[in-house]
Amino acid sequence: MKNHFFKKKNNIRINDILKCLNIKNQKKNFTVGDIKEINSAKSNDITFFHSTKYIEFVKKTNSKLIVTNKRLINYIPKKINIIQVDNVMLAVAKISTLFYPKALDDNFDNDVKKINKKKFLRLKAGNNILLGKNVQIGKNCSIGHNTIIEKNVIIGNNCNIGNNVILKNTIIGNNTNILDGAIIGKKGFGFFPGKNKNFRYPHIGSVIIGNDVEIGCNNTIDRGSLSNTIIGDGTFLDNQVHIAHNVKIGKNCIITGQVGFAGSSSVGNSVMIGGQAGISGHIKIGDNVQIGGGSGVVKNIASNTKVMGYPAKNIRSFLKENKSND
Amino acid sequence: MKNHFFKKKNNIRINDILKCLNIKNQKKNFTVGDIKEINSAKSNDITFFHSTKYIEFVKKTNSKLIVTNKRLINYIPKKINIIQVDNVMLAVAKISTLFYPKALDDNFDNDVKKINKKKFLRLKAGNNILLGKNVQIGKNCSIGHNTIIEKNVIIGNNCNIGNNVILKNTIIGNNTNILDGAIIGKKGFGFFPGKNKNFRYPHIGSVIIGNDVEIGCNNTIDRGSLSNTIIGDGTFLDNQVHIAHNVKIGKNCIITGQVGFAGSSSVGNSVMIGGQAGISGHIKIGDNVQIGGGSGVVKNIASNTKVMGYPAKNIRSFLKENKSND
Amino acid sequence: MKNHFFKKKNNIRINDILKCLNIKNQKKNFTVGDIKEINSAKSNDITFFHSTKYIEFVKKTNSKLIVTNKRLINYIPKKINIIQVDNVMLAVAKISTLFYPKALDDNFDNDVKKINKKKFLRLKAGNNILLGKNVQIGKNCSIGHNTIIEKNVIIGNNCNIGNNVILKNTIIGNNTNILDGAIIGKKGFGFFPGKNKNFRYPHIGSVIIGNDVEIGCNNTIDRGSLSNTIIGDGTFLDNQVHIAHNVKIGKNCIITGQVGFAGSSSVGNSVMIGGQAGISGHIKIGDNVQIGGGSGVVKNIASNTKVMGYPAKNIRSFLKENKSND
Repeated sequence: MKNHFFKKKNNIRINDILKCLNIKNQKKNFTVGDIKEINSAKSNDITFFHSTKYIEFVKKTNSKLIVTNKRLINYIPKKINIIQVDNVMLAVAKISTLFYPKALDDNFDNDVKKINKKKFLRLKAGNNILLGKNVQIGKNCSIGHNTIIEKNVIIGNNCNIGNNVILKNTIIGNNTNILDGAIIGKKGFGFFPGKNKNFRYPHIGSVIIGNDVEIGCNNTIDRGSLSNTIIGDGTFLDNQVHIAHNVKIGKNCIITGQVGFAGSSSVGNSVMIGGQAGISGHIKIGDNVQIGGGSGVVKNIASNTKVMGYPAKNIRSFLKENKSND
Repeated sequence: MKNHFFKKKNNIRINDILKCLNIKNQKKNFTVGDIKEINSAKSNDITFFHSTKYIEFVKKTNSKLIVTNKRLINYIPKKINIIQVDNVMLAVAKISTLFYPKALDDNFDNDVKKINKKKFLRLKAGNNILLGKNVQIGKNCSIGHNTIIEKNVIIGNNCNIGNNVILKNTIIGNNTNILDGAIIGKKGFGFFPGKNKNFRYPHIGSVIIGNDVEIGCNNTIDRGSLSNTIIGDGTFLDNQVHIAHNVKIGKNCIITGQVGFAGSSSVGNSVMIGGQAGISGHIKIGDNVQIGGGSGVVKNIASNTKVMGYPAKNIRSFLKENKSND
Repeated sequence: MKNHFFKKKNNIRINDILKCLNIKNQKKNFTVGDIKEINSAKSNDITFFHSTKYIEFVKKTNSKLIVTNKRLINYIPKKINIIQVDNVMLAVAKISTLFYPKALDDNFDNDVKKINKKKFLRLKAGNNILLGKNVQIGKNCSIGHNTIIEKNVIIGNNCNIGNNVILKNTIIGNNTNILDGAIIGKKGFGFFPGKNKNFRYPHIGSVIIGNDVEIGCNNTIDRGSLSNTIIGDGTFLDNQVHIAHNVKIGKNCIITGQVGFAGSSSVGNSVMIGGQAGISGHIKIGDNVQIGGGSGVVKNIASNTKVMGYPAKNIRSFLKENKSND
């Protein structure tokens, strides 16, 4: 699938990739299609393997070219070409920037114009709305005052966008509400801590919001780095929720106020999360999980489980341990 | 008291109520005045009883018509008529929508106009302020730039409303400050989790803010569902606080940054709550309570108590358990 | 150093100070230069000593006039003049207001005007930007739509200020990004709980943001009360972070989403803090510290330490205690 928001350079040669990584041993000079995550890469895409959490994917990847480090090299099937580096994610950042030179540019869209509401079907539009180029808005939508929708954003039918909302790099389904003050689609908080300076991570993913979704007031939802940040159909987010880059939330979930997700965590369908709970990065939560308010989830949670606590554990264990006579 | 923000339909007949609940046994066809919470219902209002937390109220209610479920039916005084349903709150939602057809409509106010500051006494007004119909603003107030005040909102004397504030369904006393970016009065995050779809809950309550109050930056305060969300006189809220629907906060409280309240919790007077603490739904906190930062309060707290921890317990127990040699 | 944002009254006499504190014993009638914190006061400044946390400073202070209470009086070197009061911080508030009569005034700047972008070198400016008097903006900056920059704010070169940002009483270095919806420089949540009313604390400090910094979306950063709130060079803050008054954050730190700092806490260099962690007031955190997500830090943390938990402890202790078979 073509990247809707970021323009890709074509015909990047393997030798250009090696050069940007300061690797001198030249390979056969073929061209590489794109950089993708390990489970979505096609045969001519370059991908990367940086954590044993992704072992199941590395066995099945279609990619024939993987960036990894010395420690992980033995997990990779023999038929795949390997580029060995010290810091996998730093290499990924450099390669991403090679393919998507504007991936680090997150400046505001200055080509916006005051909305021309006649261009859209039965649109209810507030004051001082700014729209970027090629924004698509379905029929029967409303957009509140002072809202900014940047270039190429797509909004489905029957959506209500509130006041003071900022949308960029975002695709929204039908019947979805985005409440006041939500900020969606900026680049995520992904970067590399350096000794003297921290380096930003390119973000070429989008935010994909399904149908019948509600995004609460003052939510912040960052776009993905390589994959997309996804909010599934029928999912409701309360106020002041923070969703980091690459997070995938399933269908019909209920996420209560002030919940926070670190990068690349994933949540199944029909999951309920109580207020102020936090989900660590790269965690996988199954379907029908219930997470108590204030919990800190630091490891994977199987489907149909109720957890609570910090760190979150089975709710019966939590209640038993905390049944005191205070 | 008449609902200031939501128009009520009069003369709803009991048979229309039963019909909307899909109950076929018809009762004597009298009319019902309104739908109210159990402790504020008058004799011709319909009310509901859905949790043993409200047993003390059900004994004293003035209502003669209660919606409840099989499990709770025996707690209800014999003289009261009962409508038995499987899901009490879903029934309440349906009945509320019957009385208040616009209760689910939370779209932004598109009848706002640029403020005419001459209409108000000694008003200091910023740029790009939008005001709905029938907004009342007392004397000596200030309103910051880009602020939106929707129809029927009432603001007392000597109030300072900041920049980028959004006010709807809200009544504010005198000498109260609402800081930049606060969003007050939208409908709460109350709804019914369904197997395949979640249903929103009607919200016909308001937000009532007292005198000498301060509401911090980027706070979100939702209006009540059936009763009001209330912030008492002299109470101060720090930045990024979230107050859910129906929450009642007493007088002279100090609520520090990033604290969150789940729906229908109540707090007495002179309560101090440390940063990032969370209060569960339907919890009752007494007067002069001190809650340590980061606490998770999951049960009622008696007056004059100091608590800390997750779950919150007596602060002496907490400190003793955590006095380690790490 | 002159206060850039708040005008100081000169030649305040000691007898005026005593009078405002309702102290009748008159001292020799000399003039006092300013009110400062104990470690930055010069010889003719008045300072204060209200907690044993500052014992190391009281021994070395240059001030010759200290406000303190009975309990702390013996820690003060004999050569220093003492003003004894019951409530030190309340006295400080009164004295500060004497020196800085506008310190409590935090109303929005109504002397702002639509930006004249030609006044600044290579500025990329959005719509509806409001600028106060004497705002300085360096070269090659960008400022997003609907942003408000109040009087006397200073912004360095190559800075990107997002949409809907509010800046007041703030000085920003070079190459720094302030993301959408951040609110920076309002007065802190510092005041005195009174039996029947809470009194606000004057705030004459600023927010000082270094070079190469990133401030995330919807962050709130309050200005200092007497000293400044400081964010060091190369430090990155994620979305929805709250920084209270007087907080000092060092260089090259990474502060993840929804972290909160209570007043007057300090953090060294190269510190990493996980999402939703909270730092109590007046806490001192060393260099190269790593604080796990969701932690509640309630005491000082030595340099080069990894902590986690609530309350935060050594991460090995935390993991050991929580290694359960749930």
